[in-house]
Amino acid sequence: MERSSHKVSMAVIRRLPKYYRYLEGLLKKDINRISSKELSRIMGLTASQIRQDLNCFGGFGQQGYGYNVAELHNEIAKILGLNKHYSSVIVGAGNLGQAIANYSNFQRQGFELKGMFDINPKLIGLRIRDVEIHDIDNIEGFVRENDIEIGIIAVPLENAQDIADKLVAGGVKGIWNFAPFDVKVPENVEIEHVHLSESLYTLTYLLNEKDILEKKD
Amino acid sequence: MERSSHKVSMAVIRRLPKYYRYLEGLLKKDINRISSKELSRIMGLTASQIRQDLNCFGGFGQQGYGYNVAELHNEIAKILGLNKHYSSVIVGAGNLGQAIANYSNFQRQGFELKGMFDINPKLIGLRIRDVEIHDIDNIEGFVRENDIEIGIIAVPLENAQDIADKLVAGGVKGIWNFAPFDVKVPENVEIEHVHLSESLYTLTYLLNEKDILEKKD
Repeated sequence: MERSSHKVSMAVIRRLPKYYRYLEGLLKKDINRISSKELSRIMGLTASQIRQDLNCFGGFGQQGYGYNVAELHNEIAKILGLNKHYSSVIVGAGNLGQAIANYSNFQRQGFELKGMFDINPKLIGLRIRDVEIHDIDNIEGFVRENDIEIGIIAVPLENAQDIADKLVAGGVKGIWNFAPFDVKVPENVEIEHVHLSESLYTLTYLLNEKDILEKKD
Repeated sequence: MERSSHKVSMAVIRRLPKYYRYLEGLLKKDINRISSKELSRIMGLTASQIRQDLNCFGGFGQQGYGYNVAELHNEIAKILGLNKHYSSVIVGAGNLGQAIANYSNFQRQGFELKGMFDINPKLIGLRIRDVEIHDIDNIEGFVRENDIEIGIIAVPLENAQDIADKLVAGGVKGIWNFAPFDVKVPENVEIEHVHLSESLYTLTYLLNEKDILEKKD
């Protein structure tokens, strides 16, 4: 019973969407059962790691049978909150904001995009996928009136904290931040940062790893 | 000497760009020295974790003095391979491809964008930031002739593996993949996936965590 007061470790949490993605891939191939050994092989994890991860949420394995793919997919969807709908806004209607608005997984999973916002008068009033672009000055009121739960930040880093403050003032519960800046939010608001440069620099590290470690030793 | 044949753990590798980002923030504020305690506080890590991470690459601490911010920033830049230049192409010149092309950190860090590619005849021949959009059929030859090191995939998931194969055939050393599909590459090619939906689903998990864990117990 103790665990309800403790958060699951972020390492486990970050693997959950990966399970979801792999299980979705299996479903698309009409694979209905999978052994923990085979699931671990395709995901590059150990079978015991998978069991431990799933045990954080009650466990879903069936000995001598493996996992029922559709059931496990469904359970993980619920754990991830993907059985619900979320109202959202995107702040910043440039290429990045538009790319997010058009991102197919985003539309498919019940993330209802209610509005976009930009500072550029040429964009205000236009529609992307039938969603209107509003003046950035109206964020707070719009979020409050439309019970927006998720605010997505796709503005330059200089403006990111100001936008986050307005989204929080309007009452969002979570922020998905694409600006390369760790915007601060109060404890009752969840935040997830997408740091694209961290991903890119991981790649450049890997391209150079051999040289770097040889030089050191 | 043994470590040169072993790769550093991915968890450590993924923290390196984060150190780099925080140190860059300190430099911008003209902060020249920082204690390991203070660095750990702002980064949300323990001081011993930071020491351990940096020790993988030789260690850079100075007892009773802390870190020299500019030096550490510079050393981590070298470890990440950011002291080099990389020639790159972006495949997919839609909103996402254009957002990547315009991404300021990408331009700043010596990632030279040599060409973009698209399947849409209306885009072929246009220029984004003075970079020409070519026909997607010409990827392999272009990559080979221009010694392209990094290929960036910003196409729908259905086409992602085909594009990866062409980039590899042309001779890229690394792929930065934005398609929601784990494209496969040979062992001598490095790959880094940007799974935007995994980041989004982490956010929805966090929005629901309290309810989920309560229900379980």
